[in-house]
Amino acid sequence: LFAANHVQVKNPHLDTMEEDILYHFSLGTKTHNLPEMFGDIKFVCVGGSANRMRAFAQFIHQELQLPGNSEEIRDICEGTDRYCMYKVGPVLSISHGMGVPSISIMLHELIKLLHHAHCRDVVLFRIGTSGGVGLAPGTVVISSKAVDHSFHPQFEQVVLGKVITRSTELDEGLANELLQYSTELQDLPTVIGNTMCTHDFYEGQGRLDGALCSFSPEEKLEYLRKAHEAGVRNIEMESTVFAAMCRVCGLKAAVICVTLLNRFEGDQITTPHDVLVEYQQRPQVLVSHFIKKRLGLII
Amino acid sequence: LFAANHVQVKNPHLDTMEEDILYHFSLGTKTHNLPEMFGDIKFVCVGGSANRMRAFAQFIHQELQLPGNSEEIRDICEGTDRYCMYKVGPVLSISHGMGVPSISIMLHELIKLLHHAHCRDVVLFRIGTSGGVGLAPGTVVISSKAVDHSFHPQFEQVVLGKVITRSTELDEGLANELLQYSTELQDLPTVIGNTMCTHDFYEGQGRLDGALCSFSPEEKLEYLRKAHEAGVRNIEMESTVFAAMCRVCGLKAAVICVTLLNRFEGDQITTPHDVLVEYQQRPQVLVSHFIKKRLGLII
Repeated sequence: LFAANHVQVKNPHLDTMEEDILYHFSLGTKTHNLPEMFGDIKFVCVGGSANRMRAFAQFIHQELQLPGNSEEIRDICEGTDRYCMYKVGPVLSISHGMGVPSISIMLHELIKLLHHAHCRDVVLFRIGTSGGVGLAPGTVVISSKAVDHSFHPQFEQVVLGKVITRSTELDEGLANELLQYSTELQDLPTVIGNTMCTHDFYEGQGRLDGALCSFSPEEKLEYLRKAHEAGVRNIEMESTVFAAMCRVCGLKAAVICVTLLNRFEGDQITTPHDVLVEYQQRPQVLVSHFIKKRLGLII
Repeated sequence: LFAANHVQVKNPHLDTMEEDILYHFSLGTKTHNLPEMFGDIKFVCVGGSANRMRAFAQFIHQELQLPGNSEEIRDICEGTDRYCMYKVGPVLSISHGMGVPSISIMLHELIKLLHHAHCRDVVLFRIGTSGGVGLAPGTVVISSKAVDHSFHPQFEQVVLGKVITRSTELDEGLANELLQYSTELQDLPTVIGNTMCTHDFYEGQGRLDGALCSFSPEEKLEYLRKAHEAGVRNIEMESTVFAAMCRVCGLKAAVICVTLLNRFEGDQITTPHDVLVEYQQRPQVLVSHFIKKRLGLII
């Protein structure tokens, strides 16, 4: 019963390995004491941009009123430039780059890291940016589920050349808890909705401004309208594999993305830089509030 | 006839736009004079790691014996951390992160950049790392074509929810020219072969050491043997969309990746760091030799 809360890998071969090198983190079971370094982790926050995940680590350091200078926070993965990783008390902040393959490499190594470190009761959050579908820019979307380009809650994974399908449902209780907390915060317009995950930013999301485009503005709008009818409220590029892998490994997970534009009104991101920066802080503020609630720092 | 050598976009909507913001480069047609900044570009080299592409820019600066300090080279995309970009004379060096979606965003914006800058006669190289299939670690593979997980030379692109298929054949003359040049260099074991592009580093490439694994060592080896029989000599994660997009836009392109391990012998990358660093320089040395030949700096 106790072990059930431990982070589980789904790979019988791992136990037989003498050493496990987490290559894209520049960490390993022989070179690092992973239980000592990471055993107390309870919250993992991941996002695309390295700078943003560093800023989140500094922000949560201040929010949790931890000792030390938040400016001096060290990148645990400084031996590589594939990802960066910061630890702040029980919170791990990691960047994952853009797209499903990039986040999937990170998730494999993260789940192994949490397993090797004997972590328990871990909650994962993806905090990101997205295109909105029928929402005012700046709205935060908590994903009820991640859907593919056909609006199905599934992720197609190729294993040894064969396609298998995994569910991309997310934890309903966690999403509702986050929505409830958003009402306790100022300037945090938040909805729950489906999140469409694509493998391309331009043609795959119906943008008219890529190097390649073979469709009309009307065809674009028709696709976005169909997505909206299927409950899609935002579009990004990592949620399906994030939901699928967390689900297979029994990890509680949420996807919280702010919308930078309303795709019914355009394709280009023309909002001023300082406004975009404020938008990108919104998922961070919500997750910080959640963490402080869970830690009993606020009631 | 003259215009045929210009870099072509395949999007009729672009001409009607007042401004084009290349969001992930933090560049734009109104905020930057792209023809002045990039009009003389003849060679574009792309690779996954930001540090490696900075090192390549410094290396090519020395190789071309250009004035100025190669250490002081400036990241043109410093306004964003999505990609980094360095210009060294007629050479552009850009990072693209890991996986097809990440490189595809970069390629859309790169092809638009070259188009807006009125560049002509541009050759593109992807210089990367890969897993080898039946080759000694350190071997450089020049891709004859990029193939998918079923060993077919095609890339499936989703456009408005529908799958279309694009060819991933690469320029045969360019590959042969590169192979010829490799024989003029020391310590540069090089072959031409097919390159398999996957969307996942672990299950998709038949690794036994991911967080998830549902197959046996024998099933893994059978898949790799089939790949080898189909002419696959290395596996990476970006070549299909790189080949497909360059082909659609009429750009000459080559994929040159070094193998870091022989997948018939293992999954983990255990080679010492300094050896890996030397391996990663091999595609850079080959491309530098090509560029110097083309510029008439060596005969």
